[in-house]
Amino acid sequence: MLDHIRFVLCNTTHPGNIGAAARAMKTMAVSRLTLVSPRHFPDAEATARASGADDLLQNATVTDDLEAAVADCHLVLGSSARLRKVALAQYNAREAAEVSVARAAAGQQVAVLFGTERSGLSNDEINRCHALVHIPSNPDYSSLNLGSAVQVLAYEFQMAMLNQAGLEPNRMPDHVPATQNQFQGLMGHFEQAMTVLKILNPKQSATLMARIQRLMSRAEPSDVEINILRGLLSAAEKAAQKSTQKSDTTPAGEVVGPDR
Amino acid sequence: MLDHIRFVLCNTTHPGNIGAAARAMKTMAVSRLTLVSPRHFPDAEATARASGADDLLQNATVTDDLEAAVADCHLVLGSSARLRKVALAQYNAREAAEVSVARAAAGQQVAVLFGTERSGLSNDEINRCHALVHIPSNPDYSSLNLGSAVQVLAYEFQMAMLNQAGLEPNRMPDHVPATQNQFQGLMGHFEQAMTVLKILNPKQSATLMARIQRLMSRAEPSDVEINILRGLLSAAEKAAQKSTQKSDTTPAGEVVGPDR
Repeated sequence: MLDHIRFVLCNTTHPGNIGAAARAMKTMAVSRLTLVSPRHFPDAEATARASGADDLLQNATVTDDLEAAVADCHLVLGSSARLRKVALAQYNAREAAEVSVARAAAGQQVAVLFGTERSGLSNDEINRCHALVHIPSNPDYSSLNLGSAVQVLAYEFQMAMLNQAGLEPNRMPDHVPATQNQFQGLMGHFEQAMTVLKILNPKQSATLMARIQRLMSRAEPSDVEINILRGLLSAAEKAAQKSTQKSDTTPAGEVVGPDR
Repeated sequence: MLDHIRFVLCNTTHPGNIGAAARAMKTMAVSRLTLVSPRHFPDAEATARASGADDLLQNATVTDDLEAAVADCHLVLGSSARLRKVALAQYNAREAAEVSVARAAAGQQVAVLFGTERSGLSNDEINRCHALVHIPSNPDYSSLNLGSAVQVLAYEFQMAMLNQAGLEPNRMPDHVPATQNQFQGLMGHFEQAMTVLKILNPKQSATLMARIQRLMSRAEPSDVEINILRGLLSAAEKAAQKSTQKSDTTPAGEVVGPDR
């Protein structure tokens, strides 16, 4: 079941931390590691720190961007050193592990993201997440390093897996979220339709799109629900193009936004 | 309450591990550290690895033998990498933390012992313990290093303390869901816009609207988010009305059903 769960290290600066993370994961039988544009990898220091967990490094998936790393995921969680003021559910490590293991047991793919050492996940990375995870820690000294954060989370994932038999069967929502690919297709369609409708002020477009992304992330739409929303967006686009065609002389095909 | 709990490192070989343990403890607000005949202490490497938790090193109690380290303790737990065949209670980390915090809350002194890096606690040291603690781990790779073991146990102690005190941190996302009135206004607007766009097949309209309602309910939109969506719906309506005015009775879009 833990093979449905991947830990994704984003933009890791120090290769030693990648090795430490691999070791921490392996002690808890969490074996799928994805690296998003690590600064140095492969690297001798990573291998040295992995200390017997170098199979995780050899089997690691390395991607250029986060999008590719989570494209097939149904649930994306972002680890955060502190509670953040964003409109996302915020789990503690235990809750996150319980939710994730239940999802994995239902066949879903789950990713847990870890940001770069100095500053954690960027806002763009957080916007990809359905929920945040924090490790409760000393408010006066909360500086868990990357390896320690991975250790605690991997530990909770393993505990949740061991306890899984005791999980209430009804914890799973009665619905299967779409993959991130489908979800991003919806986001692209929102942007395109709003552009065609001329309600996307270029100065505020990033903020507005981030808001819509967070809103829709919370809902975790299924593929059917995404199709319903895209049907609405398509109809709105067509109406807008038709009304433009009638009034100006602009050809209908030219007033389209980014690729869907 | 955590001041009634001490972590006792026995015969630690590498001073760096003492520093790592101090750091791991401090992240979880476990602050009482006792060192039983450490090979090198104080030591620059310990201080370096403690990285801001050097106050724990400065305040550490150093003793020559275990007896002195636990003399005033009511409960002594021995950490062990694996289950041992001894006639002692064997807790996992979570159970040990719960028991310890309950004892500490009752005013008792509790010690958790960690053995030397290579071989763990000796039989003599185990004989001082009331119970053993193990961290559930991968049977094929259970080599948590000292710092990691301290990290996981300190984490569980802090979780037990937070649970005991009802001190779960406030995790309300920075987001206030709109009132039901506002929410129903959004639902009405969806229905109206889809009608104007001629994509609401009357036979399926109730089913489709129920689907949209469930989707949006899960997201619990705020009033700002509702305004964003209603802005989009208004723009779509206007475009549809304009295109109808300009031309004829051709439907603006295609009929979509839930299974498009």
